[in-house]
Amino acid sequence: MTLRNETLTYEADGLSMASQFYWDDGLAGRRPGILVFPEAFGLGEHAMSRAQRLAELGYATLACDLHGQGQALDDLEQARAAIAPLRPDPHRTRARARAALQALTARAEVNPTRIAAIGYCFGGTMALELARSGAPIAAAVGFHSGLATVAPQDARNITGKVLVCIGADDPGIPPEQRAAFEQEMREGGVDWRLHLYGGVVHSFTNPAADRLGRPDFARYDAGADARSWSEMLAVFNEVFPG
Amino acid sequence: MTLRNETLTYEADGLSMASQFYWDDGLAGRRPGILVFPEAFGLGEHAMSRAQRLAELGYATLACDLHGQGQALDDLEQARAAIAPLRPDPHRTRARARAALQALTARAEVNPTRIAAIGYCFGGTMALELARSGAPIAAAVGFHSGLATVAPQDARNITGKVLVCIGADDPGIPPEQRAAFEQEMREGGVDWRLHLYGGVVHSFTNPAADRLGRPDFARYDAGADARSWSEMLAVFNEVFPG
Repeated sequence: MTLRNETLTYEADGLSMASQFYWDDGLAGRRPGILVFPEAFGLGEHAMSRAQRLAELGYATLACDLHGQGQALDDLEQARAAIAPLRPDPHRTRARARAALQALTARAEVNPTRIAAIGYCFGGTMALELARSGAPIAAAVGFHSGLATVAPQDARNITGKVLVCIGADDPGIPPEQRAAFEQEMREGGVDWRLHLYGGVVHSFTNPAADRLGRPDFARYDAGADARSWSEMLAVFNEVFPG
Repeated sequence: MTLRNETLTYEADGLSMASQFYWDDGLAGRRPGILVFPEAFGLGEHAMSRAQRLAELGYATLACDLHGQGQALDDLEQARAAIAPLRPDPHRTRARARAALQALTARAEVNPTRIAAIGYCFGGTMALELARSGAPIAAAVGFHSGLATVAPQDARNITGKVLVCIGADDPGIPPEQRAAFEQEMREGGVDWRLHLYGGVVHSFTNPAADRLGRPDFARYDAGADARSWSEMLAVFNEVFPG
């Protein structure tokens, strides 16, 4: 394995994005490509490490910039403020996701017909919004991802499989939001799944979540992290056989 | 591999049970044991084939009789009538399950400290009721299993992990029943998970479901069958490491 990394820059939604591309240069041929959208804090260690792990498994991956200039925010309130304008306007979220998709599929290492998107927290919402936009992605996987959308009717545009992995006690994704998502997916005729983990809250995939000091809201959970990762890989094995 | 099979007989809840025990005689030492509880129709091809597959993977398994004398019922209404008296009285269900547990753990091939229970439809309910009884099982896995119980307060007795795999469109397990189960598990402090499969109804693991001719109620789903099986094996790998 010869793991390589390069910064890809592109414009999206009026921002200059700087995303991190990872691939195993020891592999021949075009690999399935995976977009990795970060938490609301923006591109940092968490999303980059997951993109790298996927590249080690043979995927070509893009850990995607969210806020422009590859910015990572430290503060939760700052992160929330940064994404607040995006929530009522999924076209802006989708524009950022689609530009990342274009940057990834433009690479010679990537098979543009074999693309999936994953994301964490708001990044999971981005993966879902990319799917709702009708982008030709084979799968969207969200981890502790917000499920709400102002455009539920767009679920009918979703062509790939959807998996969302949610903490049953996540205060940010309450049962009513899950029920609305279920209804949205059903009405859209989507091939979808929701995995609900008992005793688990927000940010369960991110060891850095514990630094927030709000364990009832956000807390790392090694078991749920490992399970959801395996369940994501199972989806990839379904949509990228052979 | 030298797969072997033997009928185990025992009394339970006033019935003479005849269950099917499977193990690989080519393996040395005591193996983790798995109870396999069948659908409401009773012990038939479906539960026996699953128990056999698990035995091929190195577990010692018991495909459990439900109605006594190893009876398999053909008719859905007959099956419903047979389990109707059990629903308001979980002690009878638990008595049948506990006797199966005793029969399994009495075998020299089985490690009595490493037991899990799985079940399909009413058999999933049996696995859950066995867990609610406080039986020392490391995991209970239910496939299209009824989640309702008249004794939700007994969830606090559950010592092992719980996974239930449910079709999102199963008419027999509506959203309110899932919500009540979620509440029960939370209040009981259980290590639990619920996997919800979109576009999937009842009996999704059983190819014979299609013979009922009621596809809106019961329908085989190869994808959900394969996924839920893998997700069950992942639970076994968690609770029976090494």
